[in-house]
Amino acid sequence: MKLLITGGAGFVGARLARTLLARGTLAGKKIEHVVLADQFAPPADLLADARVSARTGALLAQCAALAEEGFDGVFHLASAVSGECELDFELGLRSNLDSTRHLLDAFRLQLSKGGKVPTFVFSSSVAVFGPDAGVPMPPVVTDTTLPAPQTSYGTHKLMCEYLIADYTRKGYIDGRSARLMTVTVRPGRPNGAASSFFSGIIREPLAGVGSVCPVSEDVRHPVLSPGRTVEGLIATYEATRETLGRRLAFNLPSLNVSVGEMLAALARVAGPEVRARVTFQRDERIAGIVANWPTGSVAGTAARLGLKADDSFDDIIRQYIADCRATPGGEAALKGLAA
Amino acid sequence: MKLLITGGAGFVGARLARTLLARGTLAGKKIEHVVLADQFAPPADLLADARVSARTGALLAQCAALAEEGFDGVFHLASAVSGECELDFELGLRSNLDSTRHLLDAFRLQLSKGGKVPTFVFSSSVAVFGPDAGVPMPPVVTDTTLPAPQTSYGTHKLMCEYLIADYTRKGYIDGRSARLMTVTVRPGRPNGAASSFFSGIIREPLAGVGSVCPVSEDVRHPVLSPGRTVEGLIATYEATRETLGRRLAFNLPSLNVSVGEMLAALARVAGPEVRARVTFQRDERIAGIVANWPTGSVAGTAARLGLKADDSFDDIIRQYIADCRATPGGEAALKGLAA
Repeated sequence: MKLLITGGAGFVGARLARTLLARGTLAGKKIEHVVLADQFAPPADLLADARVSARTGALLAQCAALAEEGFDGVFHLASAVSGECELDFELGLRSNLDSTRHLLDAFRLQLSKGGKVPTFVFSSSVAVFGPDAGVPMPPVVTDTTLPAPQTSYGTHKLMCEYLIADYTRKGYIDGRSARLMTVTVRPGRPNGAASSFFSGIIREPLAGVGSVCPVSEDVRHPVLSPGRTVEGLIATYEATRETLGRRLAFNLPSLNVSVGEMLAALARVAGPEVRARVTFQRDERIAGIVANWPTGSVAGTAARLGLKADDSFDDIIRQYIADCRATPGGEAALKGLAA
Repeated sequence: MKLLITGGAGFVGARLARTLLARGTLAGKKIEHVVLADQFAPPADLLADARVSARTGALLAQCAALAEEGFDGVFHLASAVSGECELDFELGLRSNLDSTRHLLDAFRLQLSKGGKVPTFVFSSSVAVFGPDAGVPMPPVVTDTTLPAPQTSYGTHKLMCEYLIADYTRKGYIDGRSARLMTVTVRPGRPNGAASSFFSGIIREPLAGVGSVCPVSEDVRHPVLSPGRTVEGLIATYEATRETLGRRLAFNLPSLNVSVGEMLAALARVAGPEVRARVTFQRDERIAGIVANWPTGSVAGTAARLGLKADDSFDDIIRQYIADCRATPGGEAALKGLAA
């Protein structure tokens, strides 16, 4: 089988590609070819795999050519992040709404020329939820909580969920939308996501660097490790339509945790001196966005698919440390850990 | 003030224009100019009003020019109907999704050049609702029932609701979305809407013509008269942001009525011989679409705005008869009524 991963050079996309290549099969079929479409080139280890090809460039310009290649399945992860889209409205429209629309239409056109109906997994987001005057947001959101996005990012993700449901109803794709929780701990540099600090307050101290937390310790949020997130995307792909039921968008599992609990876990796993590298300084812009996000989530469909959240935030930190150690040169990210 | 009505030559649009011109004011301001944009020319009586101009052509091609004209307010009613969009997927995308997006972006661009922030009333639809495996659709939907559209028409209307909420949050427009109930009794010919028969089973018998009802007598549905619908659109325009609250999309009031009750009202108002012109023959395509629609609705925000549904379906039929009599040549539509 031949798979497309958009955003395939990104953190989640590359991890998904590695996991799929290591498994060798998806939905009972042998994976013969994985195409990674991204505006950046994929990591070298992926390019070294004979099954991998890269299509580098803006997704919007690539949709038609990608659809013409023909794919059994698509993981559509490419996305501009929430903070970026709040600063650049047109970037959000282009990257998160138009690109998805064009990709769907390219596959629809290809189908009319005799192409296949691809399984299409869309990475939506917990950012579709928000407070609402009509229905106060419950402390914990579910698959059927009324969405009320408070960012352009969340708005476009939600619009695409509904678009994908309609293209699926019409038989153009076999679509499903997994709402990702905040993925933490992300490696590398902070990104433009308003949620970036949820990784930064763990990653920076482990690297021996100070980190400023822009919200207070009692802020609660649903998070999931990169490993569990990739597991969720794969299970979403493999789920039968019968298991999914009529509603094709659902929340991945989450660990609902406060900033204070995250930092307590950091102290337990890495020591109090690592924890002490985190200080607090409120950033009104970030705090304002985060205040409109859910404080927790409960999985419905995802639980039926057998998916589970990480057992503890300690486990999430341990996963990050193990990942760094398994990556060539990754030890540099753990300079702050006592030997 | 200067107003734009898209779909301004259509049935609801033309009635809205007439009502606005007769009032002379909107939101306390004098109406100086009303632009009717439609693919068809507006009715002659509207063109005869010195305050009215027509912009005839496809909306998608007119968005930029319209925004450059500058408007204090917009009623965006232009839409392809549900049945048409089920038969022609691209028509729905173009007419109901892309046109709205382009119109919004044209106003956003104009604002960046020093234009005004228009009040923007969008006619959404009760078709955003549908049955859902996760949450069974309640017998009666409310403003905060989880939408689950089962047609492309409902999907695009819902997507536009969320788009309009986001453009409003960003300050590009002052948007609000009124979800129209099925407007009945519509004059003229059947249209491509799956709900067309809700007018046909009243209009045709009154004209002395037989009408075939494609669903059974016990099908229940939320309807509203043209007069109350126009009243709702105007109140939606005039509502303060404070009254609307945070959720900008809401259901107009409705009379929740069964086909049998509609026909009983027809017998009361027009006589049993008129009622007898309606026969039943199930149309699976129409019945399938209608089966996925709500059987009733309750107004929340609309009730706070002081809006009410018609008192009875008898009143709705009487409104239609009075409208026909008030229209030059309209008596022809009442040939089936005993003198």
